[in-house]
Amino acid sequence: MADVVEIAAMRRALELATRGPRSRNPQVGCVLLSPSGEVLAEGWHRGAGTAHAEVDALSKLPEGGARGATAVVSLEPCNHVGRTGPCAVALIEAGVSRVVFALADPGEHSSGGAERLRSAGVDVEGGVLEAEAREFLAPWLAARALGRPHVTVKWAQSLDGRAAAADGTSQWITGPEARADVHRRRAEADAIVVGTGTVLADDPALTARDGDDLFPRQPVPVVLGSAPVPAGARVRAHPRALLAYPTRELGAVLDDLFDRGLQRVFVEGGPTLASAFVSAGFADRILTYIAPTLIGGPRTALTDVGVPTIADQHRLSVDALQRLGSDLLVVARPLPESESH
Amino acid sequence: MADVVEIAAMRRALELATRGPRSRNPQVGCVLLSPSGEVLAEGWHRGAGTAHAEVDALSKLPEGGARGATAVVSLEPCNHVGRTGPCAVALIEAGVSRVVFALADPGEHSSGGAERLRSAGVDVEGGVLEAEAREFLAPWLAARALGRPHVTVKWAQSLDGRAAAADGTSQWITGPEARADVHRRRAEADAIVVGTGTVLADDPALTARDGDDLFPRQPVPVVLGSAPVPAGARVRAHPRALLAYPTRELGAVLDDLFDRGLQRVFVEGGPTLASAFVSAGFADRILTYIAPTLIGGPRTALTDVGVPTIADQHRLSVDALQRLGSDLLVVARPLPESESH
Ligand SMILES: NC(=O)c1ccc[n+]([C@@H]2O[C@H](COP(=O)([O-])OP(=O)(O)OC[C@H]3O[C@@H](n4cnc5c(N)ncnc54)[C@H](OP(=O)(O)O)[C@@H]3O)[C@@H](O)[C@H]2O)c1
Ligand SMILES: NC(=O)c1ccc[n+]([C@@H]2O[C@H](COP(=O)([O-])OP(=O)(O)OC[C@H]3O[C@@H](n4cnc5c(N)ncnc54)[C@H](OP(=O)(O)O)[C@@H]3O)[C@@H](O)[C@H]2O)c1
Repeated sequence: MADVVEIAAMRRALELATRGPRSRNPQVGCVLLSPSGEVLAEGWHRGAGTAHAEVDALSKLPEGGARGATAVVSLEPCNHVGRTGPCAVALIEAGVSRVVFALADPGEHSSGGAERLRSAGVDVEGGVLEAEAREFLAPWLAARALGRPHVTVKWAQSLDGRAAAADGTSQWITGPEARADVHRRRAEADAIVVGTGTVLADDPALTARDGDDLFPRQPVPVVLGSAPVPAGARVRAHPRALLAYPTRELGAVLDDLFDRGLQRVFVEGGPTLASAFVSAGFADRILTYIAPTLIGGPRTALTDVGVPTIADQHRLSVDALQRLGSDLLVVARPLPESESH
Repeated sequence: MADVVEIAAMRRALELATRGPRSRNPQVGCVLLSPSGEVLAEGWHRGAGTAHAEVDALSKLPEGGARGATAVVSLEPCNHVGRTGPCAVALIEAGVSRVVFALADPGEHSSGGAERLRSAGVDVEGGVLEAEAREFLAPWLAARALGRPHVTVKWAQSLDGRAAAADGTSQWITGPEARADVHRRRAEADAIVVGTGTVLADDPALTARDGDDLFPRQPVPVVLGSAPVPAGARVRAHPRALLAYPTRELGAVLDDLFDRGLQRVFVEGGPTLASAFVSAGFADRILTYIAPTLIGGPRTALTDVGVPTIADQHRLSVDALQRLGSDLLVVARPLPESESH
């Protein structure tokens, strides 16, 4: 069982982890403790191509300085031969006698580090502050499992699925509670994505606002499509630098966002882009804000989502159903293919 | 205060009321009690153009036989000069000394009967078994207030407002719980209305079914539109005789249904007819069954509902939001014009 000193060291390791940037790699922190419980060295991972947290910490000690030490790491030491070599082996070679970690490595190629350490005679204990580590790494874990950022697609519609009246007017389809909910969720996202159509039609700021104030955390604004973003567009005044991708290749865009450590992507439309994400199977979560109104006509909130016949419909499961003022919010996610037919 | 004998007589009056047919006129029953509490005569209203319940009961007594009697009536005696003359006057002229009624007459032209009776020196008491009377007459009261039957428009749609995939396939958009809910509501309606488009496309039975069995109460099937209903259409085998109106004049149809005593109309589509009812302002209640699925494409559950610009949208208030299996049901009604802009 981990003692108080090790648990305190794990808290510190989690703190160190946050110093590293978000990237395709997880943020990890490591504390090396002497047999009597003193901190020998600290390390953290600075992103793909740089040393892992364990190796970073070891590098701060002289040769032999970690012999008999305990390594406290926020993620199970990896076992894979990447650009840096397996951390499990580095710890073994350094003579570490005990390893405490929070979360098991979910990677197919990188896991097995604990096993490897054990078979080298190292005393290994996992699961220390696991819940905290899991919460901290949740966006990375989701993205890791998907092989790309986790995508939420949000739109607002009338009860009958329209985004605007026939002439294009649409202001305030949903009410203040729904809009506040959207802003809270924007503040939790890493990137907020729209198509050029929305930029040109609405000139949105794409900031996350708490009333008139900006939330401290702001998503990176992202615009997709070949039309240029006008020089005076409000999105250019966003506190985070604009990422404009003059392309319709959603997969390539998600790849690049993932590389940049943007793990939670919030797609806010319009109809063309939302439909493209749904069609491509990139919508991991659907947020539909429904205003209690009927509009009819041609301006549907989704356009074509690749459903020529009913067997191809995109079946969802509803995770939550909420009233927001006089509006409704449906939170859903795609059913796995096998359950949807 | 009404005594036990009068309350029992009121229960009997409500029972008698049900003997009359539904029509533009309310179903009303009347019991005449002697001063010592014996039943002198009973009456009920048999529909427009026939005697009102009070006059029906009085007609069963010899001249002067109601002198000093108590009239127990399920609705306030009317005060208007219609085809039958005001009942209030008939009661006064018959020498009735006390009148007990359940529900005040909501009519603009017919109310004031209690006042008239009182000013002729008759002892009047209203509100006896009022709740029962109100529940019994609820469909008539609603239709009376509207000047036409109360209309529920129901449709099933995907979350994004589609009724079918691009090729028209749509079977089982919603699940068994939602369908059972529809059948229960059909059984409460007086008429179930579809357009010729639905008859020709789906050949629906338009019965209210409890699993494989018919509910004891069945709505009258109604088909609107000029295309003829095929001789072999299943709706022709409905336990109630089909009403086919080869017209698109919804107001005229509702008028005729009202004349026939059909006070609760359940419109089940398709998209063209549902949209026509919404456009015309004839949708008093909206039932939207939402299947958790995305379909996109051209087959919207509503088509054009007369909203060229957003200021003309049909604002609703949501009365209920329910999960039915994996589907959602939104029950809504139009906001009064003044609150919707
Ligand atoms: N109801 C809502 O929630 C909501 C939300 C946002 C906006 N809106 C409304 O939606 C309207 C704009 O709609 P919209 O559909 O034109 O805008 P949009 O979806 O924001 O932008 C469409 C553009 O996205 C680009 N794009 C990038 N990847 C694409 C792909 N894979 N497939 C297709 N297009 C891709 C294309 O730009 P290029 O042609 O430049 O290549 C395309 O023209 C505005 O009126 C706005 O008010 C509504
Ligand atoms: N999602 C749902 O809940 C639901 C429910 C029912 C049906 N459906 C589907 O809807 C499809 C049929 O749709 P639909 O729209 O063609 O059928 P519909 O609405 O049932 O019928 C349309 C017809 O109604 C008649 N009509 C009567 N009064 C009208 C008025 N005021 N305005 C316009 N038309 C009026 C016209 O008939 P005439 O042309 O003969 O004059 C018109 O062609 C079928 O595929 C069916 O499966 C879906």
